[in-house]
Amino acid sequence: MNNSPAVSGSPADITTTPAASAADFSADVIIIGAGPGGYRAAEYAAKQGLKVIIIEQSEVGGTCLNVGCIPTKTYVHSATFAEARERMAQVVPQLRAGVETILSHPNITLVRGRASFIDANTVNVGSGSVASKNIIIATGSETKWLPIKGIDDPRVVDSTGLLNLDTLPKRLAIIGAGVIGMEFASVFNRFGSEVTVIEYLKECLPALDSDIAKRLRKTMEKRGVTFKMKTAVENVADIDADVILMATGRRPRTEGLCLGRVGIALPNANSPIPVDENFRVATVPDASASGFPSGSPSGLYAIGDVNGKQMLAHAAEMQAVRAVNHILGRKDNIRFDIMPAAIFTEPEAACVGPTEDALKAATTPAASASGYSCRKAFWRANGKALAMGETEGMLKLFSDAGDRIIGCHAYGAHSADIVQEVSALMCRDTTVDQLRDMVHIHPTLNEILKAATD
Amino acid sequence: MNNSPAVSGSPADITTTPAASAADFSADVIIIGAGPGGYRAAEYAAKQGLKVIIIEQSEVGGTCLNVGCIPTKTYVHSATFAEARERMAQVVPQLRAGVETILSHPNITLVRGRASFIDANTVNVGSGSVASKNIIIATGSETKWLPIKGIDDPRVVDSTGLLNLDTLPKRLAIIGAGVIGMEFASVFNRFGSEVTVIEYLKECLPALDSDIAKRLRKTMEKRGVTFKMKTAVENVADIDADVILMATGRRPRTEGLCLGRVGIALPNANSPIPVDENFRVATVPDASASGFPSGSPSGLYAIGDVNGKQMLAHAAEMQAVRAVNHILGRKDNIRFDIMPAAIFTEPEAACVGPTEDALKAATTPAASASGYSCRKAFWRANGKALAMGETEGMLKLFSDAGDRIIGCHAYGAHSADIVQEVSALMCRDTTVDQLRDMVHIHPTLNEILKAATD
Repeated sequence: MNNSPAVSGSPADITTTPAASAADFSADVIIIGAGPGGYRAAEYAAKQGLKVIIIEQSEVGGTCLNVGCIPTKTYVHSATFAEARERMAQVVPQLRAGVETILSHPNITLVRGRASFIDANTVNVGSGSVASKNIIIATGSETKWLPIKGIDDPRVVDSTGLLNLDTLPKRLAIIGAGVIGMEFASVFNRFGSEVTVIEYLKECLPALDSDIAKRLRKTMEKRGVTFKMKTAVENVADIDADVILMATGRRPRTEGLCLGRVGIALPNANSPIPVDENFRVATVPDASASGFPSGSPSGLYAIGDVNGKQMLAHAAEMQAVRAVNHILGRKDNIRFDIMPAAIFTEPEAACVGPTEDALKAATTPAASASGYSCRKAFWRANGKALAMGETEGMLKLFSDAGDRIIGCHAYGAHSADIVQEVSALMCRDTTVDQLRDMVHIHPTLNEILKAATD
Repeated sequence: MNNSPAVSGSPADITTTPAASAADFSADVIIIGAGPGGYRAAEYAAKQGLKVIIIEQSEVGGTCLNVGCIPTKTYVHSATFAEARERMAQVVPQLRAGVETILSHPNITLVRGRASFIDANTVNVGSGSVASKNIIIATGSETKWLPIKGIDDPRVVDSTGLLNLDTLPKRLAIIGAGVIGMEFASVFNRFGSEVTVIEYLKECLPALDSDIAKRLRKTMEKRGVTFKMKTAVENVADIDADVILMATGRRPRTEGLCLGRVGIALPNANSPIPVDENFRVATVPDASASGFPSGSPSGLYAIGDVNGKQMLAHAAEMQAVRAVNHILGRKDNIRFDIMPAAIFTEPEAACVGPTEDALKAATTPAASASGYSCRKAFWRANGKALAMGETEGMLKLFSDAGDRIIGCHAYGAHSADIVQEVSALMCRDTTVDQLRDMVHIHPTLNEILKAATD
């Protein structure tokens, strides 16, 4: 087998190629990409007894572990830029080793290389190929570079580039006040950089309730971050900064997959792969050309950022479980409509469910019986918050006309933990009345949630 | 009304004395003590439209706010002893003012003074008296001084005394490894004192799973705290320290209440007031002598530490709500069997439900079908914990034979928040299977809980 890809793991673990396929190896499921979606799918499938081939062109762990959630959090929890650099260099390889351990399961074969489809059941990797009736695309996303004039200015970096800086920039400009922009603004401001955030929209963090988002922005302003809202960048050359972070979003990573060969025709390079509720690739416009048995359901899935549904690591993980459950013919009760998220600014922010703006828009006078309730509570009234010196924060708890909790948006210390509690309770169809009767530990910040029910 | 007690609040708010009573004022409910149980009862009753008289002999806010939970947490969240002193001096009066605002509700009259019963419907305060058919005793607890030889040594202080120290003791000895002892050990060790904890029992924190308690103790040992376990203090004079903290527990505060006049005969000075599930004083041995209408239910309640059931501020608050609901004839769904608690050592610890030791003891071979399951997870495997540099920690999640979650014990950063989530889910009768399907935000420490379900 001279043409086989570089396979780590024992060859004894690999099912030999069925005669019908020209592939070098086959498995019960092939996963393309070893980020949070991919490695979680591999781990779960392997534990359920499926033989797995997982293909990764770069380091295992994906954006999240290598250049996303985790490295940024080492920055958030370090006192200085130097300490952050050191901690990141220590933590990232440690967690990567953890993922490698997960992928060393006897049912998993990790293949290093770049994947491209040959047909709907066969994937080319390097000079070899692998085959399976089930293939999960989990290639994630990459920085979306906007076509702004002067974007090739050497001062411009994306989040990966910013994390690679050896020295703290004196003046940092950030284009985009989304999650990435806001987290870096917060942390570099604390490290001592002069930070300016430039945002085209009126408010930061569009997924967050605008009331909460505004208060968070004002808090960061008080701490020294400059915000230029409703401002378009005409020319990068006009920006007065040493380093410029491009943080205008991410796009699904589909380049080089040869999706056309499996009948997936995407409108443009920023388009996600459309999927159904089981994260199965939804539409195959030309089934005859794709290698799918015509009329029968496809074994092709797309999970995580690449399907553009919920670009969050924990969403990718749960989508992985759902996709593998679908392969196994198992039902689960994962509620993808209850998707909490957090932003690790200082203080942090978090949300689950719709914003109040969205709830207002959905409530017409004619439909007032189906209106919502909003209850508020404040960090400054909480004993623990005062004891911690963390008095900045506000929470909104939303319920429907039947008193059922439908969401929570908050900023303030530990708001991710508070929203997590709400999110879990929403999965259990909890009412505000029921929440009011639940004991909350004193003195904790979760008491703020309870205070909102009074 | 020369003999009236010092009443703050408008006299217009006070119902004049009914002819049948000799009291100066009457109300729908009298509350003795303005700690977390008392002020919460007052706030809730007043909001429901009841006229309330609340009696406090000292500062409002009780032990918790003035010399307990809150001041200790200002210590926990301060970098130095000096900063802690300053923060405490700022935060405590601020929160006290908050309680005073709550008690300024038009339906509430705050009476400053020491209460003692005249009969089951009348309470003496100073040189006056107040009357109601409903009286809630919420007098809290005080330090239990053990009769150890040399206990009158001027080096010996209780927690209140320790919080009053102006200078950091070089050597601090702590008698008792309960919650108070462990929290102060942790914080004074960090401030730079040489801390020795002397404990009669084999392990610290008896309410915490012994496995978790041991690991926490070992972690604190590594950080410099000396533990002398299974050690009885024979003579305080033998202890080599500058300050000695008496932290061997607290006893219900009942002295001076003249409980005998309402037929409550307590076995000794450490005895709690026995209550039923609505926190109504359970037994009145000699009804004829107590002023109760014979054979009819009493309107006498005891909530919080004074009933000795669950000596926690948040338990007192919920007992307050239950007692007032009972007065109002309202049902609630407060689950007093699901009572989470936290210990704010570094790292913190928390628990809800029984320890594994208790579960083991309850599981006989004959009853193996009713056995429990224990799932573990570790902080060192969590990305956020690594990013925070908080890798010390372990969690145990317990479920019954029907997969229902019955408890969680943990130590490690944010374990109070994690246990809070479990506690809320237990109130909603959640299974491990259901928890496994719930999304947990990445990267957070709450993912450790989810990891335990895999």
